[in-house]
This record gives sequence, C-alpha cells and structure tokens, in this order.
Amino acid sequence: MTTTVSTESIRNGVDTAQLFDTLDAVVGDPSLGRFQFRVSNEWVAGAHNRGTIRGFYGAGQEDTSRAESFVVEAGEPAVLCGLDTGPNPAELLLSALAACLTTSLVYVAAARKVSLTSVSSTVEGDMDVRGALGLSDEVRNGFERIRVHFHVEGHAPAEKLQQLVDRACQRSAVFDMVTNGVPVSVEADAA
Amino acid sequence: MTTTVSTESIRNGVDTAQLFDTLDAVVGDPSLGRFQFRVSNEWVAGAHNRGTIRGFYGAGQEDTSRAESFVVEAGEPAVLCGLDTGPNPAELLLSALAACLTTSLVYVAAARKVSLTSVSSTVEGDMDVRGALGLSDEVRNGFERIRVHFHVEGHAPAEKLQQLVDRACQRSAVFDMVTNGVPVSVEADAA
Repeated sequence: MTTTVSTESIRNGVDTAQLFDTLDAVVGDPSLGRFQFRVSNEWVAGAHNRGTIRGFYGAGQEDTSRAESFVVEAGEPAVLCGLDTGPNPAELLLSALAACLTTSLVYVAAARKVSLTSVSSTVEGDMDVRGALGLSDEVRNGFERIRVHFHVEGHAPAEKLQQLVDRACQRSAVFDMVTNGVPVSVEADAA
Repeated sequence: MTTTVSTESIRNGVDTAQLFDTLDAVVGDPSLGRFQFRVSNEWVAGAHNRGTIRGFYGAGQEDTSRAESFVVEAGEPAVLCGLDTGPNPAELLLSALAACLTTSLVYVAAARKVSLTSVSSTVEGDMDVRGALGLSDEVRNGFERIRVHFHVEGHAPAEKLQQLVDRACQRSAVFDMVTNGVPVSVEADAA
C-alpha cells in the first residue's frame, strides 16, 4: 500500500488524512470493517505465562505487516504465590482499558481538530481475591468496580476536552467489553 | 515474612505449601482478601501510549515488593492508523484473558495434585471496527465474541484435565470480568 503523508495532516501524531481515508473506505465497503485479533499463550511455570501477538485479519485480508511478534509476559506477585515475572492478568486488563480509552480520546481529538499536549490516566480496580481463590461464592472473581481518572491538556477549552473523554468512552472497544461483557467460548483438548 | 520452601511442595512451579498457607490466612481473616490493582498510563503520540504497573494493595497492606515497574506499550497497526508501537488494546485484553485462564488452570492443578507438562492456548476475538470508528450504531464497539482453545497435557486422564479447564473458567478473575462486565467510572480533569 502506498500512502502519501502530508505533514499538514498530522495532528496528535495521527495522520488525519489517512484516518479519514480509512473511514471513507469502510463506509464504501462495510466488509472492510471486519477484524479478527488473536493471541497465543504458552505456560512457562507457575504463574508465569507468555502471550504472543502478531497476525490478524482486517480490512479484507490477513495482515502480515508486523515484522515481529509482540510478547506479553504475565505473572503474579509473591503474595499471590508467583515470582513477579510480569503484570498479573487483572493488571493487564486494566492496561488494556487505559490504552483503549487513551487511543480513542487521541483519535477523536485528531478528527475534531483538537491538538492535545498531554494525556495521562490512572486506573484502579478493587477485588476481593476470595472469589478467584475459591474461598467464597459471595464475592465475584473479578473486580467489583474500576475507577478511571484522566488528566487531559490541549489547545481547547476544558469543556471541549471533557467532551473528548465522554466520546472516548462511547467508542472505546475495551471500555465496551469491560463494562458490558462479551460471550466467551472455551474448548480444550487434553492428553 | 519468612517462608519455608520445601521442594516437595512445588508442583507446576507453584509452591503448594505457600498456596495453602495463603488460603488458610484469608479464611482466618477475610479482610486479607481485599486487593486493589492499578495502572498508570501516559500518552506518547498517536496510538502509542504506555502503561506502568508497580504498587498494589493486598493482604492488609500496600505491597512494595516489586523492585521495578512493569511497562506495557500499546499501539495500533498501520491499517488502523498507528505505527505498531505495541499490541493494540483489544489484543491486550485477549492477552489478559489467556493469562488469567492459564494461571487459574495451573493453580487449580497444583492444588489438586495434578502435574502438568504443557499448557498452551489460542484466543481469537471478532470485531466489526465500524463500531469503534463511530461509523455504525448497529454493531458494538468491542468483540462480538471471543473463542479460547486450550491444549493441556499432564499426568492425569484427559477427563481430569478437562475438569481443570472448567474449574479455571469458574474461578478466573478476567474470565468473570470479560464475560460479565464490571462497573467502570470515568472522571477527567482538563486544562
């Protein structure tokens, strides 16, 4: 694919010309919007396991543009019987949420011609681990609640920056999944 | 905390003596089960942002055992207007799910005295990006469905290994959150 990049079209590090071309292309052929993302995971030992991410399907074809795989190490801290080989899975979920809201916010700002100078956030999740440890059926396994706090700076009135955060929540893929849930099927072959 | 490690108590890389001590401690004082996990995220440019993970609260105190922070880079591939600076947020969510199911399975196996030799999985999520791109209100923003496939090998009959996968789903924190959803509050200050 040949892309002509005009530096004038770059806002917040997003090539808005490419972004609008992408939107036009998907409007013209909605089948281009169908994506499939994938992770392979391999157990290492104890709480240490490793996710590998590379290929995906999207925009009408298998995407092979990534030169290398991304690797996501997971673990548990000592207090949860691990060797701290990586973030624990619940922390990875919070990372996914923060990342998706941030990217959504930045893309929305670029499309609305708002130049941002700084975006940071903290995400906290409260969990009673008696659920996941199998010690209580009265508490859930996952977080009871998650709190996100954003700090946003940019060349727009505070009210407009707040609207970007609202719009990010309305369009974020991970915010949708974490708040509304997704059907998950699990199958296994064992030997 | 002084921990006596007996190599005889290690199964699947999990110190089962420590695991049962932990379970006993939380049964004795349920308040020790209250945890809070956290991520800080900083926008870099475009779809590139970076999560940082270190401290958390758990087992009755602020945990400061981690010597260093974990860093989770996020990005988007070229076709989604990014520079491929890391997995995209939806892929991070799949990573969290695979990691949590795997760790849950390994801990359950250790507790049930099943020695595992291999655990691997693939996780796929189907998404119509017209939702997240704001082009359609008829498709959701996130994955429509997620499929997990495990391959498990160990010193137990296939039926028993299958039961470990079922139990992992029943107790995994991230499986609970992704399938059932979590209340998320978002607030922002803007300047």
